[in-house]
Amino acid sequence: MRLPNWRSILIRVWIFGFIFATGPASAQNGDHRPYLDVATKIIDRALEERRAYSMLRELAVGIGPRLSGSPEAAAAVEWGRQKLVEVGADSVWLQPVMVPRWVRGDVEEAEVVQSDIVGDHPLTVCALGGSIGTPEMGVVGEVIEVHDFDELARLGKNAVAGKIVFFNRPMDPTERHTFMAYRGAVNQRTRGAAEAAKYGAIAVLVRSMTTRLDDVPHTGGMRYIDGIPKIPAAAISTLDAEFLSRLLKQERRVRVRLRLSCKTLPDVPSANVIGEIRGSEKPDEIIVIGGHLDSWDKGQGAHDDGAGVVQSIEALRLLNVLGLRPKRTVRVVLFMNEENGLRGGREYARVALEKGWKHVAAIESDRGGFTPRGFSVDAPPKTVEKLARWAYLFEQIEAGVIRRGGGGADISPLKRQGVPTIGLMVDSHRYFDYHHSDNDTFDKVNERELELGAAMLAILSYVLAQEGI
Amino acid sequence: MRLPNWRSILIRVWIFGFIFATGPASAQNGDHRPYLDVATKIIDRALEERRAYSMLRELAVGIGPRLSGSPEAAAAVEWGRQKLVEVGADSVWLQPVMVPRWVRGDVEEAEVVQSDIVGDHPLTVCALGGSIGTPEMGVVGEVIEVHDFDELARLGKNAVAGKIVFFNRPMDPTERHTFMAYRGAVNQRTRGAAEAAKYGAIAVLVRSMTTRLDDVPHTGGMRYIDGIPKIPAAAISTLDAEFLSRLLKQERRVRVRLRLSCKTLPDVPSANVIGEIRGSEKPDEIIVIGGHLDSWDKGQGAHDDGAGVVQSIEALRLLNVLGLRPKRTVRVVLFMNEENGLRGGREYARVALEKGWKHVAAIESDRGGFTPRGFSVDAPPKTVEKLARWAYLFEQIEAGVIRRGGGGADISPLKRQGVPTIGLMVDSHRYFDYHHSDNDTFDKVNERELELGAAMLAILSYVLAQEGI
Repeated sequence: MRLPNWRSILIRVWIFGFIFATGPASAQNGDHRPYLDVATKIIDRALEERRAYSMLRELAVGIGPRLSGSPEAAAAVEWGRQKLVEVGADSVWLQPVMVPRWVRGDVEEAEVVQSDIVGDHPLTVCALGGSIGTPEMGVVGEVIEVHDFDELARLGKNAVAGKIVFFNRPMDPTERHTFMAYRGAVNQRTRGAAEAAKYGAIAVLVRSMTTRLDDVPHTGGMRYIDGIPKIPAAAISTLDAEFLSRLLKQERRVRVRLRLSCKTLPDVPSANVIGEIRGSEKPDEIIVIGGHLDSWDKGQGAHDDGAGVVQSIEALRLLNVLGLRPKRTVRVVLFMNEENGLRGGREYARVALEKGWKHVAAIESDRGGFTPRGFSVDAPPKTVEKLARWAYLFEQIEAGVIRRGGGGADISPLKRQGVPTIGLMVDSHRYFDYHHSDNDTFDKVNERELELGAAMLAILSYVLAQEGI
Repeated sequence: MRLPNWRSILIRVWIFGFIFATGPASAQNGDHRPYLDVATKIIDRALEERRAYSMLRELAVGIGPRLSGSPEAAAAVEWGRQKLVEVGADSVWLQPVMVPRWVRGDVEEAEVVQSDIVGDHPLTVCALGGSIGTPEMGVVGEVIEVHDFDELARLGKNAVAGKIVFFNRPMDPTERHTFMAYRGAVNQRTRGAAEAAKYGAIAVLVRSMTTRLDDVPHTGGMRYIDGIPKIPAAAISTLDAEFLSRLLKQERRVRVRLRLSCKTLPDVPSANVIGEIRGSEKPDEIIVIGGHLDSWDKGQGAHDDGAGVVQSIEALRLLNVLGLRPKRTVRVVLFMNEENGLRGGREYARVALEKGWKHVAAIESDRGGFTPRGFSVDAPPKTVEKLARWAYLFEQIEAGVIRRGGGGADISPLKRQGVPTIGLMVDSHRYFDYHHSDNDTFDKVNERELELGAAMLAILSYVLAQEGI
């Protein structure tokens, strides 16, 4: 086999790297790569004490799911404030923000009615976040299956008006990263209702955004568009999506009744929770680490994004207990309302602009508490390259991939101000098994995987606090 | 920051690699790296059809745990034979082997007796595999806690005789790979009883080999040594190990009663299951892929090693359905009795020598059905380097690490014949949460992670079948 030259170099360097580059041993043997000893200490401590995991139990099991505006979200704000005080932040404060208040209510059900083949047959559904409810007796309509908005447009008003549109395009199982598969399917959920309503649909059912086949519906945000009628929108479990699709192939006309009691109440006050270790030399330069405190109202919001919250708090604790006093300010921000409004992220960025806060970078963990693989950086190539110099710090846990990619939703408003935003990259295969559903519970989180994410945040924020970008 | 020169090269090559080296796109764009298109097709197909997962349901849920010599192990042999026929192996046969028959029986319990602090208090234990039972009324003795064999030796006969030795050295949580932590602790389980019996102990309790704190005991193999008395040996859950250790600090004298009904019956006939696609050009040169069909009698043997079994069968299926006819023979071996005897692995190697089978390499998957990271190769550095040329085939799923390391237990007897042995490396953080316990069930396996392992085996076995090493 012939190999291009650069590749054989890669392989040699790679092998060399594996012999010489793996962590603790080399640090002890007089390795002079900066901060490698610090990184090793942080990782050791994280794995020994496993505090992110015990904090996650408090948040996910103790408080539970915490949709924006709910009593649980308020409890999470106070919990976050206390934790940041406990772990030794120099100052902790709440940043007020008004948030939407959507409530699911008691009723969410759907059934196939009077099918020739199955008679009346229940379907497993849940309301999408932001959906209007149905009349108490529900809406009943013939189902029409589509896979994308083009197909919907081709069918047009004649075929769609008065019907329930069933969006059934699966997440592509062959995508190597499930987030790419999600990106390829999620517009059905976010915009499906508005698109279908353009053609006179009376409701939508959307195949759940998951790579699994099971009977658990996955909720998530959806938006109406001004000037287009609002129609009820529900997620259907993947198993029932398959069932309904098969039924539609066998039966010319399938009718479904959908009943949802969800509604939107007036906005309520809430807050971002902020705590920081003030920089010893350049306190005005800030490195943000964070996740979002709110979650959907299904499951326990353990991976999404309890994980990011406790990892951020734990990162601050690790710096403190190891006596690592940063030169620049390391600030934890627990954002409110990522899931259905991004009000917290927007408010933080607004205040930052108003007060002239100078951010070196903002780092978010919002892809679940899974094994870290590295960081994705949303910044110009030059910045990515500079950050990639630090890859060796993470290689001892095989998480040394630093490449261009998304930062995170909560920090995206900062990105618009030119702040480099950085996302913790993790193994993505399991995320959408749990995401926005009753499956997203504490028991699905592995202690070691979670703690390593906290260590990643601690290491990168500390190095950036010492060295800038 | 100053970087040594080789490192800056690494980083540049790394970044270059990420831009140009990731799979499908580059394959379509006229990338000429050999077999990249094949690897992409195999991965796509594995993720689309997900047959390893459905096979694992049959094996782990349908048949369940399958300790050597049990009726379930016999059922697994027949199941494996049928599956290999179904997926289109050219020939399928059973290779007979006699295996040990150890049975747990109905009774395994322990309790602290007449403690001043807790009175009579139950402990969560299970017999270690191979242990003798206790008399029906159990053995009762004072507990003495030790952490390693040196400590035991220092205590000596005076302190140990007549007591129950409690081995309580945890797996080191700071190890980056849990297998390293396992290696650092497991001699307590395998040799603890024999070592303690040297000093007159009457039984041993061994802290479960897991990185978790929970109330589930983990079984596993132990061995007696000729000439040293056999004493009963049980694993204790990590939570109860912590409890017992605390109690010992507070109370001078803690007595425990242990009751086990396990015993060893005469050996019984069983078999390795073998199926192959015969090589089109060099049929006498063989690439083995495999895992072990037996499991412990706890849980369902899903990760250990149902995963390796179904991945191997699925690898063969993938080659067949994609019309990839290998030049050399690709042979699946489902080994029997890895857990408590290695009789299958030894018998396969014995027959191989007898018949003069020429093995190019043997590849085993026995580290759980988790996200693949690459392969560890037990062979001279030159061979490792040659195999590392193929790393790019696995980079599209971020599993391109090929480095020196262990092959696998079942194929270790082949290694002694000079065959390069190769182990599928996977993310290791969760493995010991499940390993050898009631936790090792089908629901702990993620479909995508499992299928990617099957793809890894298919790709590497095919490339080696075409190119040799």
